[in-house]
Amino acid sequence: MTAYADLMAFQRETEALSLVAERLGWDQETMMPPAAADQRGEEIAALEGVLHARRTDPRVADWLERAKSADDIGAAQLRLIRRSHTRSAKVPARLAQDIARQTSTAQGIWAECRARDDVATFLPVLAEVLRLKREEAACLAGGGDLYDALLDDYEPGATAATVAAMFDRMRPRLVALRGAILGSGRDPASLTGSFAKEGQMALARKVASAYGYDWSRGRLDLAVHPFSSGSGSDSRITTRVVEADPFNCLYSTIHEVGHSSYELNIDPRYALTPIGRGVSMGVHESQSRIYENQLGRSRAFAGWLFEQMQAQFGTAGAADADAFYAAVNRVRSGYIRTEADEVHYNLHVMMRFDLERALVSGDLAVGDLEAAWNDRFRSDFGVAVDRPSHGLLQDVHWSCGLFGYFPTYTLGNLYAGCLYGAMRRAVPSLDMSLAQGDTSGATAWLRDTVQRHGGRYLPQDLIAAATGSAPDEGPLLDYLEAKFGALYRL
Amino acid sequence: MTAYADLMAFQRETEALSLVAERLGWDQETMMPPAAADQRGEEIAALEGVLHARRTDPRVADWLERAKSADDIGAAQLRLIRRSHTRSAKVPARLAQDIARQTSTAQGIWAECRARDDVATFLPVLAEVLRLKREEAACLAGGGDLYDALLDDYEPGATAATVAAMFDRMRPRLVALRGAILGSGRDPASLTGSFAKEGQMALARKVASAYGYDWSRGRLDLAVHPFSSGSGSDSRITTRVVEADPFNCLYSTIHEVGHSSYELNIDPRYALTPIGRGVSMGVHESQSRIYENQLGRSRAFAGWLFEQMQAQFGTAGAADADAFYAAVNRVRSGYIRTEADEVHYNLHVMMRFDLERALVSGDLAVGDLEAAWNDRFRSDFGVAVDRPSHGLLQDVHWSCGLFGYFPTYTLGNLYAGCLYGAMRRAVPSLDMSLAQGDTSGATAWLRDTVQRHGGRYLPQDLIAAATGSAPDEGPLLDYLEAKFGALYRL
Repeated sequence: MTAYADLMAFQRETEALSLVAERLGWDQETMMPPAAADQRGEEIAALEGVLHARRTDPRVADWLERAKSADDIGAAQLRLIRRSHTRSAKVPARLAQDIARQTSTAQGIWAECRARDDVATFLPVLAEVLRLKREEAACLAGGGDLYDALLDDYEPGATAATVAAMFDRMRPRLVALRGAILGSGRDPASLTGSFAKEGQMALARKVASAYGYDWSRGRLDLAVHPFSSGSGSDSRITTRVVEADPFNCLYSTIHEVGHSSYELNIDPRYALTPIGRGVSMGVHESQSRIYENQLGRSRAFAGWLFEQMQAQFGTAGAADADAFYAAVNRVRSGYIRTEADEVHYNLHVMMRFDLERALVSGDLAVGDLEAAWNDRFRSDFGVAVDRPSHGLLQDVHWSCGLFGYFPTYTLGNLYAGCLYGAMRRAVPSLDMSLAQGDTSGATAWLRDTVQRHGGRYLPQDLIAAATGSAPDEGPLLDYLEAKFGALYRL
Repeated sequence: MTAYADLMAFQRETEALSLVAERLGWDQETMMPPAAADQRGEEIAALEGVLHARRTDPRVADWLERAKSADDIGAAQLRLIRRSHTRSAKVPARLAQDIARQTSTAQGIWAECRARDDVATFLPVLAEVLRLKREEAACLAGGGDLYDALLDDYEPGATAATVAAMFDRMRPRLVALRGAILGSGRDPASLTGSFAKEGQMALARKVASAYGYDWSRGRLDLAVHPFSSGSGSDSRITTRVVEADPFNCLYSTIHEVGHSSYELNIDPRYALTPIGRGVSMGVHESQSRIYENQLGRSRAFAGWLFEQMQAQFGTAGAADADAFYAAVNRVRSGYIRTEADEVHYNLHVMMRFDLERALVSGDLAVGDLEAAWNDRFRSDFGVAVDRPSHGLLQDVHWSCGLFGYFPTYTLGNLYAGCLYGAMRRAVPSLDMSLAQGDTSGATAWLRDTVQRHGGRYLPQDLIAAATGSAPDEGPLLDYLEAKFGALYRL
């Protein structure tokens, strides 16, 4: 047991340092003065060097060899430490630091380029990130598929082939649903009016509270691209404000509350251990999406939100709660993934998946990315991209080096679909509570079946245990067809 | 030269990590959710462990032995690295981490205790900090004086004996000046009215800008105890707001702008090297105090500030600029060091110096501290402490483990006095500029003579080179007697 105890004590500090790195990232996106980006890159690179050295420390290999776990929790800890050690050992320290430095800098440049629609400045920076990530992927893949090697970082066990097969099964039903909706002749009105920033933020706080967000362990700030960060007793969320579109702020907030609550609801006994974090990006996204969509965009919750909007602004921008619900769920070919309706959302992800696979394989050059993006967008969404910030500059991911991350969004939607079916069976009074702005039945069920377990179980096993069957895309597609079929009277 | 280059590359990462630790401290005091304090303690302790390991890394000793410096800059770098290595090697890693963890936690407890005047909860926490710091001091002192060992961390070369001698020389003239003022029968009115928080913060930003604070590399936030933190391209300031006393916010801001500008004005070629930081706490304080007092509390600048107050609030709370100037410099026996006038300020420091020396030597038990504080305060200031937050709970320092830090405040005032005399000779149009809110002549002179050099020279040598003579207390006392003699017609 001494080797196990020594390993866990060492790991505890590694986990703490990794939270520090996350906090630096949060600061960079919310608080950091604009001219500090290069210095921050050095700071993050230095910290990444420390983390890499710890993950690959020869003592870890030795402890792993000798450590005995007393129970299944210990076994899960060892499995995750072994995984991290093995993966990290394949990547040279210098490369890990170069990636940390370059992605930190690239993120700042991305934000500036997005603000002024400047593709020309962004592409060389992206090319360098891609070069480094391909080098990393080659180290990890050991002759295997580069994209698989990157994807595995975010969703253990997933491969490009399984993702592609999942997309192939989903795509026809989604395209058919989209076609039926757009051909229905119905197009509910968007909200009318403008909604002041302060009011939106006040309402965002109210909505986060309605979802049980724990303010004593979190906070809400503004960021260009909403995100959540941290864990344990400090997990923070961000949102953004568009005065003409309060849904942007409100549903970004709910989405990030989902991510953050997952981290905050993990069993506190797991704090600062490997299983003390969300198990995968897919499961993470299942929590943010079920908070945002299945709960937040339900008719019941929309009715409550309609009243809150009226109370905050004097008007909700819609004639009545039904019109508000229709506006919340309006389906149309928008440019922006994070603002997409539930029908279009996964089509955005499929497009990014194909483009980033081509970038990583080398089939698509960075110089040709804008044309490839715009062609594909016109073909999938039926409209032309009108400016780069509505096109390839919209997402932060690639500048952060997050190639292989996008598919986990759809995987998260798929898991959310499965969980929602099981939740409705387990929480029969759900709609009645949501209509009062009371999400506690739903969030308690998610905490008990998913969130508290952290990284203890494998993603597929966790979802299967929570729902009673292996995850597949059926429940999500059934849910979408039923919801939008009723809304658009298909 | 290879050993030197290797050492400096290693040191660059150490400096970056040390900036990360500083950023965590900033976050803790400005942004961190309240329930995150314990986790933050773990994070800071883990990072402190990394820093300690790097400072004591055997490779550093080896590089130091073999490194040759090409010039005096290289020699200064090696001197500072050697100093840090030698000091750190004397303190066991476990103790360094315990101190980091305990002071991080104690700081949060201090803030809570101060808010509710709770001495009983605070004292055991302070006792543990003191125990750890005495243990550290014993490691550092190697049989010598414990207090000297701690003081040397903040002001290289200073000792309790030299500080006590300096205080003995200053005290009679300060006490006499105080007596004459309080016995003069004159007591200028304080400002009248209440000044809204938003207006104070807007004016604080304006005043910081007037001092040339670089917002692209900094920011202003609220904190319980104002401080500045960071360096290079990211040095941030904090302030606090008392609606009845706008000087609290405004002069705290100017003070921290002084600290922060020092760090921001260091030659950028020194960034992320040992000489890329302010050279000592005393010199640091000289910059904050000369910005705050000799410049900010001058008649000329007060005239400009009077107009800005009128523009911001419709009233400056005083009949005219002369009355405003008198209010800015009103002398009275207040409880709070950071709000003390220039005459009383150093008497606060002398009191803390004696108390903390007694704590560190073991002559004073933590359990007797409150009585000792209150007795001494009544004796030196002629009034009884009315509540602990006006007494021993007012300063964050001891909870942070900063024993030996207080004397550097008075040393800073002494340096500021010397610098101000030289500055007046070098910048003849000073008062005319200050009356327009233009500090650029003064700040440019400080940047050129002091700030840009960072840690390149020893404190005493730096001040001597800037002023033309070895620093002593004469100029400060002459300045105080002249200024307050005129104000109170002594």
